[in-house]
Amino acid sequence: MAPLTPLTRVLPSAASRATSLLRTIQFTHPPSCPCHSNPNYHKTPTSLTQRNYEKNRQYATPVDGALAKEYAFEMAASSIRFGPGVTQEVGMDLKHLGTKKVCVVTDPTIDKLFPMQQVRESLAREGVNYVVYNNVSIEPKDTSVKEAIAWAKAQNVDSFLAVGGGSVIDTAKLMNLYTTYADAPFLDFVNAPLGNGRPVDRPLKPLIAVPTTAGTGSETTGTAIFDLTTHHAKTGVAHRNLKPLLGICDPLNMRTMPSAVKASSGLDVLCHALESWTAIPYTERKPRPAHPLQRPAYQGANPISDVFSLHALKRTVKYLPRAVHNPDDLEAQSEMLLAATLAGIGFGNAGVHLCHGMSYPISGRNPGYHHKGYEVNKPLIPHGVSVAVTAPSVFRFTAPSNPERHLAAAEAFGVDITNAKREDAGEILSDAISRFLEELGDQPKGLKPLGFTSSDIDALVEGTLPQRRVIVLAPGIEGGENDREVLTRLFEHALERK
Amino acid sequence: MAPLTPLTRVLPSAASRATSLLRTIQFTHPPSCPCHSNPNYHKTPTSLTQRNYEKNRQYATPVDGALAKEYAFEMAASSIRFGPGVTQEVGMDLKHLGTKKVCVVTDPTIDKLFPMQQVRESLAREGVNYVVYNNVSIEPKDTSVKEAIAWAKAQNVDSFLAVGGGSVIDTAKLMNLYTTYADAPFLDFVNAPLGNGRPVDRPLKPLIAVPTTAGTGSETTGTAIFDLTTHHAKTGVAHRNLKPLLGICDPLNMRTMPSAVKASSGLDVLCHALESWTAIPYTERKPRPAHPLQRPAYQGANPISDVFSLHALKRTVKYLPRAVHNPDDLEAQSEMLLAATLAGIGFGNAGVHLCHGMSYPISGRNPGYHHKGYEVNKPLIPHGVSVAVTAPSVFRFTAPSNPERHLAAAEAFGVDITNAKREDAGEILSDAISRFLEELGDQPKGLKPLGFTSSDIDALVEGTLPQRRVIVLAPGIEGGENDREVLTRLFEHALERK
Repeated sequence: MAPLTPLTRVLPSAASRATSLLRTIQFTHPPSCPCHSNPNYHKTPTSLTQRNYEKNRQYATPVDGALAKEYAFEMAASSIRFGPGVTQEVGMDLKHLGTKKVCVVTDPTIDKLFPMQQVRESLAREGVNYVVYNNVSIEPKDTSVKEAIAWAKAQNVDSFLAVGGGSVIDTAKLMNLYTTYADAPFLDFVNAPLGNGRPVDRPLKPLIAVPTTAGTGSETTGTAIFDLTTHHAKTGVAHRNLKPLLGICDPLNMRTMPSAVKASSGLDVLCHALESWTAIPYTERKPRPAHPLQRPAYQGANPISDVFSLHALKRTVKYLPRAVHNPDDLEAQSEMLLAATLAGIGFGNAGVHLCHGMSYPISGRNPGYHHKGYEVNKPLIPHGVSVAVTAPSVFRFTAPSNPERHLAAAEAFGVDITNAKREDAGEILSDAISRFLEELGDQPKGLKPLGFTSSDIDALVEGTLPQRRVIVLAPGIEGGENDREVLTRLFEHALERK
Repeated sequence: MAPLTPLTRVLPSAASRATSLLRTIQFTHPPSCPCHSNPNYHKTPTSLTQRNYEKNRQYATPVDGALAKEYAFEMAASSIRFGPGVTQEVGMDLKHLGTKKVCVVTDPTIDKLFPMQQVRESLAREGVNYVVYNNVSIEPKDTSVKEAIAWAKAQNVDSFLAVGGGSVIDTAKLMNLYTTYADAPFLDFVNAPLGNGRPVDRPLKPLIAVPTTAGTGSETTGTAIFDLTTHHAKTGVAHRNLKPLLGICDPLNMRTMPSAVKASSGLDVLCHALESWTAIPYTERKPRPAHPLQRPAYQGANPISDVFSLHALKRTVKYLPRAVHNPDDLEAQSEMLLAATLAGIGFGNAGVHLCHGMSYPISGRNPGYHHKGYEVNKPLIPHGVSVAVTAPSVFRFTAPSNPERHLAAAEAFGVDITNAKREDAGEILSDAISRFLEELGDQPKGLKPLGFTSSDIDALVEGTLPQRRVIVLAPGIEGGENDREVLTRLFEHALERK
């Protein structure tokens, strides 16, 4: 097992964030300051504030934007309605929106279950006109997404209602996007470098999302992920305008999840929380965009996402094992739905990094692994499983960037960190995650149990490098040549664990 | 000093919330269940889930809605952009919105200071056409609000930009509302029972808010408060559609606040956090509305508002004294702005209760008190001062409803609660708040130092009773005849403290 070299760069702790804000000010470029001609504009021009003000003048138009670091973050989230039975309200919401024809998006399994039954009853009761697209596939590919889009274009709908897990909600977002921009080629809005990364500059149609898994948090985010088959790579579209208008989070809809789905979607939540909590601070992201609307949704950790991420981590550690091991534990299912949504607000504004970036080629280049408990007739590494399998290696690697945060995460797993040393933060957190996975059960202990060998690592690295949008949010990933070496070591380390 | 009788009703702790969700289900009315004809709809119909499902059928159409308690909550907040210098971006935002003429709303003081200078420069740089209304008064009255509305009606603007504290942002919300509903009488949308409580059923014009105090959190909420002079009472309009599109939170704008304003606006944050944290749980609010859109913004404490409220409380306790005592402590000012915004998201979805409800007649019936550090030529009890003055009494009264929550709040003030007894929670929290106010400095030790005497109490109670929308969110306030007695005892208790 290759040793992981700790990073030497130390990121600011939560406590010193605001100081770093001020430091950021001092690194901005020397300005020309029109207020010199009228110093009375400053009511309390102390030497410090006056100096900061002067150094701060050119935020919006930096002299060399490519070199400038970010100084602000923006927090946006869908409205969330939460409660057992709220699915029954969706007809009233759509009626109030004045919809003429809503496209209900689901998958063939959910279409036969309780959540869709509730939806159909609610729409019928309110007299809402709707059509159902029930052909979304799990872990969707561009091909299946394009089919869905083509179907929607022919239907002339004015709103969308997604009822399902992340695959369903993400497909609905893309149907909404590409029926609004009906002439745009499919790769237009897809994240660069695989797609053109065109910004979404029009409002889309209203989308209401009813999650049936406690995982992706897709009901709160502007992200839609799919598999680009030509590149054997997961990619997607990410823009705030894709966000649902409303997420309807109904704990009663969680009961249809098989135990294995509860586990893997819960591991997705765990990694959303851990990755957004440990992502680089937003003040380290560069370049700072020239226009506020170009600020990405994935901005790096910030003081608001931190609140969500750490809270969601604690709740997931507490409730996921109960939800997985006892199908009658409705309290745990309800808490996991809430944790998934809160983690979604967190990572939806901060981003994820290495576990997610590395998971895409892991799922995409599956050597033939069938995950226990998933009743599908093809090999499948569920998203949450492929994300969590590298977590012990990833956080061992990122810990030196901010030992305090990694120790706080370990504490969330119940570790007593009173006497823990900063230099042990990575090992402590890594061990805590491994133990959690072990106790959850049925989780592969590294990439080898999935069927990967050393000879697959180059391909896995090649599949991760294009995930620039997320991996650059990891401390230690600079976007240069060094990244290939770092990822190689990470995949090697993740091959097996004790 | 009159003793406060503890309440006997015990509210569920945070840990038992989800259980209470399930309990709620069991109290709903017996339904007719069409799924009986097709039991296969339930994939895992365990006896418990099946029973819950059956009992849960009629959520949306309760047999007797007036008796039914709430079972869901909805979380909505404005987008928030945060960073030193972000005010300079507002021109780009308004230009992108395609505004033809924006109404900039501010007050005469801020109009001459740094925040408005930044705004003017940004609007000019982007070529945004604007008019400035700079005549908002501190603690606005219906008369001054009506003037502002009349002015705006004549201007034919298509968007609003509020630059100021809560008074400015709230006035801008009302200008937006009553230029959209140009024919509506002023009392139409005002909270019942003083106004007609008409729901806002149209989208308003885009409003961007740039707070210049760290207090109201008005940049994230749909609430606008003013003084209804005919009734000597504060009231307002509360609806989600009043929410700003975007709150631009710029720590550099905090520097223009005098120290006394920092203190009183910070005390507003403290009470937002404490009141929303201790409000009745949303599942105790009744009646449950017949339509999801009738669910009020002030819903009672819920698991999402809890995260914000407790976090904001901790940050306020840590940073408010620093912000007040050292005008150069930009980190503390920045953290207080963040705390104000986070508390705003918390109480904006959960509500406030007694401190706020009782503060309105305290400010409105000021016997002649001038608060130190406020340079106004009329007697003034600043909002935050009038809110905090009753806090030690209020939380002593509410503690028996949920001692764990009140002890957790005391812990946020730095109290070691390891061996604290549940029955002492009220006294412990009350003492912690009193000590905090004492150390902050220049805070009245009760109503007597403001000039009130026992003979004013009946009038103060009369002024509080119409604040139904907030006071019914306090544990122990039932909306019946008993409330008068409870409020009388609370005001008596708040007359003076050690």
